[in-house]
Amino acid sequence: MALLEPFDDYYFMKKAMQEAETAYDLGEIPVGAVITINNTIIARAHNLTERLNDVTAHAEMQAITSAANYLGGKYLKDCTLYVTLEPCQMCAGALYWSQLSRIVYAASDPSRGFKNMGTHLHPKTTVSSGIMQMEAAALLKRFFIEKRNLN
Amino acid sequence: MALLEPFDDYYFMKKAMQEAETAYDLGEIPVGAVITINNTIIARAHNLTERLNDVTAHAEMQAITSAANYLGGKYLKDCTLYVTLEPCQMCAGALYWSQLSRIVYAASDPSRGFKNMGTHLHPKTTVSSGIMQMEAAALLKRFFIEKRNLN
Repeated sequence: MALLEPFDDYYFMKKAMQEAETAYDLGEIPVGAVITINNTIIARAHNLTERLNDVTAHAEMQAITSAANYLGGKYLKDCTLYVTLEPCQMCAGALYWSQLSRIVYAASDPSRGFKNMGTHLHPKTTVSSGIMQMEAAALLKRFFIEKRNLN
Repeated sequence: MALLEPFDDYYFMKKAMQEAETAYDLGEIPVGAVITINNTIIARAHNLTERLNDVTAHAEMQAITSAANYLGGKYLKDCTLYVTLEPCQMCAGALYWSQLSRIVYAASDPSRGFKNMGTHLHPKTTVSSGIMQMEAAALLKRFFIEKRNLN
């Protein structure tokens, strides 16, 4: 199965993890995202809130803008978002407007993730989670431990 | 009182309404926003979702980015947002991250506004509403009636 279907969720989440690692290298909270359509990546992004001095510069937000730009239309109906951390209220709210087909996230965010915050997704959007959650959570943990030791 | 304090909520909401009118003239859903600090406008924006093909291009999102850019820091702790329509989940989620001090909105949005959607604001953010709500709602209504007649 794996040989016949190389473009599975694991494949794309690994690409999102590479984006998270880029964020980590820049001193940003390490979250990465890619958006796909028909098993093709059409947007890649990582968190840039520090570098851009902008709370709206989450990986998902940039990926949504980039994917819409690629498609030439603002709706992402047949697209899948792979993101290394559960989206927050803002990003889930943007995904609601985008009518994205599917969200796949790695690590959960019980305190600020959209699930516990009660953010509404578009009724047509499905959600999967847990794939590569250990790796994604470990990278975040490493970032916050190092940051604490620097301060 | 009005003579002694020209820079009241009504003054700034009128500026937000001017932004909404600019959006209307561009064929965008007419929502406008300004952000102030110490009674000075530091950001003005209007909805550009159609022109930019981007669901994230709400007036509030652009105003947050613009105000942070002006201040040279991503937190808007002493700022007030004036917006002609109740913010949605996405925008309220962005305002949560920004730690904005105060939100003043004109018209309510019972179906997609953050209140009925249950979006959490930052605990330090206060909210006022209703000022110029008739004017803001009338402009939105006019837009949607004209749009319906064109299709």
